[in-house]
Amino acid sequence: MTEAKANPLSDFPVVVTLPLQWGDQDAFGHVNNTVPIRWFESARVAYLEQSELSKMMQSGGLGPILASVTCNYRRQLHYPDRVSIGARIAKIGRSSMIMEHVVYSEELDAVAADGTSTVVVFDYETNRPTRISDEIRKAFESLEGRVIGGASA
Amino acid sequence: MTEAKANPLSDFPVVVTLPLQWGDQDAFGHVNNTVPIRWFESARVAYLEQSELSKMMQSGGLGPILASVTCNYRRQLHYPDRVSIGARIAKIGRSSMIMEHVVYSEELDAVAADGTSTVVVFDYETNRPTRISDEIRKAFESLEGRVIGGASA
Amino acid sequence: MTEAKANPLSDFPVVVTLPLQWGDQDAFGHVNNTVPIRWFESARVAYLEQSELSKMMQSGGLGPILASVTCNYRRQLHYPDRVSIGARIAKIGRSSMIMEHVVYSEELDAVAADGTSTVVVFDYETNRPTRISDEIRKAFESLEGRVIGGASA
Amino acid sequence: MTEAKANPLSDFPVVVTLPLQWGDQDAFGHVNNTVPIRWFESARVAYLEQSELSKMMQSGGLGPILASVTCNYRRQLHYPDRVSIGARIAKIGRSSMIMEHVVYSEELDAVAADGTSTVVVFDYETNRPTRISDEIRKAFESLEGRVIGGASA
Repeated sequence: MTEAKANPLSDFPVVVTLPLQWGDQDAFGHVNNTVPIRWFESARVAYLEQSELSKMMQSGGLGPILASVTCNYRRQLHYPDRVSIGARIAKIGRSSMIMEHVVYSEELDAVAADGTSTVVVFDYETNRPTRISDEIRKAFESLEGRVIGGASA
Repeated sequence: MTEAKANPLSDFPVVVTLPLQWGDQDAFGHVNNTVPIRWFESARVAYLEQSELSKMMQSGGLGPILASVTCNYRRQLHYPDRVSIGARIAKIGRSSMIMEHVVYSEELDAVAADGTSTVVVFDYETNRPTRISDEIRKAFESLEGRVIGGASA
Repeated sequence: MTEAKANPLSDFPVVVTLPLQWGDQDAFGHVNNTVPIRWFESARVAYLEQSELSKMMQSGGLGPILASVTCNYRRQLHYPDRVSIGARIAKIGRSSMIMEHVVYSEELDAVAADGTSTVVVFDYETNRPTRISDEIRKAFESLEGRVIGGASA
Repeated sequence: MTEAKANPLSDFPVVVTLPLQWGDQDAFGHVNNTVPIRWFESARVAYLEQSELSKMMQSGGLGPILASVTCNYRRQLHYPDRVSIGARIAKIGRSSMIMEHVVYSEELDAVAADGTSTVVVFDYETNRPTRISDEIRKAFESLEGRVIGGASA
């Protein structure tokens, strides 16, 4: 009896799908390490748009600032391929949130990379990080379909 | 009476379709001028694969070398959008061919950029450009569905 | 008797010098064709800053828009190397100018690429190209140290 | 009495210095988050070359593989600026090492980003990670001018 393989993107409310471009590859002949970081950004932007956070932030003079990123390169990617990049929020802290990402490769039928983005909500009037309001938190939880736990910052 | 708009990609045997990524934009807030050049490359590579030129070349120790590129930026592109990039061969010369490209934007319903790639067929044994054989020319004409005229080089 | 080699950058009033980065190389193991286009941009921006065109334009609600680019790839570049990219204005037309570029490689001691940028001066109030004023033309001629001929557009 | 500011690059045996390019900036008007990841790569490659690891590895059929990367974005960078990127080895494990990076901005006179690269030494014959030999460890310690502690992997 074979066991069904779990879909690595099933817990991600936002998924962006892209074909590799030949030029994403570097002199080692596989996708360069900066490329998944660009994909994380694409998934992060799509997430912020779909959660309506972008609109809320703009009307309140707030903006998301990327504080840090991490990426684990699990498999080498080669052209041609198509990847799907997921974004979900793992934790929400006082003024920042931790987003998780996976990159799924169709050719490999496997997770090729995963990682995190830490995003700070910044108030451009006071020029400082600001508290993530209950309204913003609820917009995220509505998109995620679940209650999101807290982070330390 | 309205006239039907011609499909700008209808004469292109190879078309690659890609979503814009947010990060394709530069500090002017629109897609950076290097990005269509990357798209031309993606369409060029797809063309060479589909025409089986890649295989023919590899078996004969030949390779395509990009001699020059031109690009006209006709419209500014903004995220989000989806573009289709066409590639077709306009002329075949003794050892080079001129490929034409258009970039069609779904959001604008217009050609956002067009241009050319001049590709030289290079022989890695003699370390020189080599004559484009009748076999290679026929592979192109078969993909294009038409006879291709000559270029001066 | 050996003849002195002419400096290919001697006629360029603005030159930007950059080290290659390893990641500028693609799967062919040499610098990707989009990279010189990025270098042209860097030289173009430096030119517009040094000619004070940027300031003049901003105060008048004008901006430079890239209409087209051409690039000839003359030599393959490999990491490590250092390149110098020149920019000069070849012709000034009614509302556009043609800038010329060369990329000189220290390792090859040769021009690795050359090309052109066509830049249109755009008026953001009328949303159209605008005439290049005598003041702007003089700023360019002062930087070039010569009279610049006319282009057709 | 003023206190001397410590040089944030003083503990880094390998430093790469680069000018920003205008096109490194994204639609937020500051350097895009993928760019420091590219800079880390440039410093990492320079480190591996200067430590002669590249040569040792090639002769033994070994290669460095990037397993993961982390980056903290501490300050926003704007064109024009010049950055220096340091690389040093913090820990060496059985088959991997952790490299640390800082990006110092001349304009800001501050660390704009820092982070780590985890590099695995891979044996292309057995297709597996391989033990970091005493010879390789000594080459690193010679470059660093100090004894390097152990990591868990």
